[in-house]
Amino acid sequence: MNDLNEKLTKYAEEFNAVLRNFSDNLKCKPQILADSLKYSLEAGGKRIRPSMMFAAGDLLHVERAELEQFALALELIHTYSLIHDDLPEMDNDDFRRGKPSNHKVFGTGNAVLAGDGLLNTAYSVLLSQCRKGDNYVTAAEFICDSAGIYGMIAGQSADLLYEQNKELSEEILGYIYENKTAKMLTAALVVPAILADGKYYSELKLFGMNFGCLFQLTDDILDVEGNFSSLGKSVGKDEEEDKCTAVKLFGLDGAKLRADILADKCLKILNGIDGDTSFFEQLVLYTLSRKS
Amino acid sequence: MNDLNEKLTKYAEEFNAVLRNFSDNLKCKPQILADSLKYSLEAGGKRIRPSMMFAAGDLLHVERAELEQFALALELIHTYSLIHDDLPEMDNDDFRRGKPSNHKVFGTGNAVLAGDGLLNTAYSVLLSQCRKGDNYVTAAEFICDSAGIYGMIAGQSADLLYEQNKELSEEILGYIYENKTAKMLTAALVVPAILADGKYYSELKLFGMNFGCLFQLTDDILDVEGNFSSLGKSVGKDEEEDKCTAVKLFGLDGAKLRADILADKCLKILNGIDGDTSFFEQLVLYTLSRKS
Repeated sequence: MNDLNEKLTKYAEEFNAVLRNFSDNLKCKPQILADSLKYSLEAGGKRIRPSMMFAAGDLLHVERAELEQFALALELIHTYSLIHDDLPEMDNDDFRRGKPSNHKVFGTGNAVLAGDGLLNTAYSVLLSQCRKGDNYVTAAEFICDSAGIYGMIAGQSADLLYEQNKELSEEILGYIYENKTAKMLTAALVVPAILADGKYYSELKLFGMNFGCLFQLTDDILDVEGNFSSLGKSVGKDEEEDKCTAVKLFGLDGAKLRADILADKCLKILNGIDGDTSFFEQLVLYTLSRKS
Repeated sequence: MNDLNEKLTKYAEEFNAVLRNFSDNLKCKPQILADSLKYSLEAGGKRIRPSMMFAAGDLLHVERAELEQFALALELIHTYSLIHDDLPEMDNDDFRRGKPSNHKVFGTGNAVLAGDGLLNTAYSVLLSQCRKGDNYVTAAEFICDSAGIYGMIAGQSADLLYEQNKELSEEILGYIYENKTAKMLTAALVVPAILADGKYYSELKLFGMNFGCLFQLTDDILDVEGNFSSLGKSVGKDEEEDKCTAVKLFGLDGAKLRADILADKCLKILNGIDGDTSFFEQLVLYTLSRKS
């Protein structure tokens, strides 16, 4: 996996340069607003979505410069969703990426506004691309749909609804995984496909949805098996709060079996794509056995 | 003012038909997400932003069909801002438009998501206009800027920061009024100006900023002088919570004097616009003496 780690580091560094440039130019007032935005943006994180977007761009020969603002928007949306998800009335997490959550530092009111601000700014970034042509508008719309009330927000709403609900089913869990997690990861791959005039659009979309479910499944497994120092967030919370996870529904072994099946599916889909898909193959295997 | 009321009613009815069509087509799941969105969208309200946009469109001969989706986006953003602003950690309002606030009905977690959902959907609506040409992108960007971290969100952040702060100054109050209230009202007028290739852009922008401050000033005065049944929301809260308002800074008479001065400014700006500006003149006078 050294090859994967090298590539992930390279992509993340490239993206962090884009993010730093963006962050340095944030001059909004009052200062606490700028500080709260920067705090969460600069809290680190694996930058998995931007990295996947850049890797898909390399696969499809889409220039990095074409993707940078889309990757930025995706990460802004991801970061806002974490801030709001950590709020006391939602997932109630005091830690994120090894640091106190936004609302623990700035207060709940400011955290709500920081999330709103990042979401709105994501669309400022996306609209700035919309004069370049119809493909760019379509790509922005794909991100918007993936993040919205038929995507991530629907998944979060279902997650909240079925918390502590004894009637959790495989169908509902699938709905939560697909919407809360998989659609935004899929957007990272579909945006380059759209900008490449639809090349491997269906394959990358299908891969993204399956990989996204694998990613969430292994996240749930990690909540049981992981530890705070490698994850940077609270562990064992799901069980403690009786959350709707695959581990709760299928047991730990059942969840792992399903992760194996999803990983197989992902690899099969990649077989149908010409070109160097080794980054994605390694990403699937890494995710299957990940410790953080 | 019968003429104004007739026009406001007509515009609001036109807009409500657009909103109803949008609302009827909301099919997101789980049901509580759809319900919480519809609850706040259909809670009534004066629809002042859409009405101002339609009136400016009539003044500049921009067809209604060109404006409907922009008006919808503006109202979606306005409604999300009310939901988040009413949250316990923000303004902590139990009532809005005469009905229990969103979080009182659906819980705080769902209210956070409902606000996020409306904001995201506003950009879905705006992006749908972006293939029509550069003016449409520029109009969408103007709304985005007005709503964002250099606009409404900055104003809300300042409002939160200076709550109960004894060092409130005229400069800070002006910053809050302009950003929290005036910029979104200005966007309602500037969008038609952009679609009319910039006709009366500067005049309408200047009018919007002054009118917005007048609107917020009279809102603060109403909080002292109004009553629940005509306002549909709690009154006397500002003083009780020692909020930063013009009444706190200048006293009731001082605030009223400043409202008079702003109304004069607004009328002078309208004098520089050819065409029938009677709707806006009447709106200024109505706002100056408004009871709700």
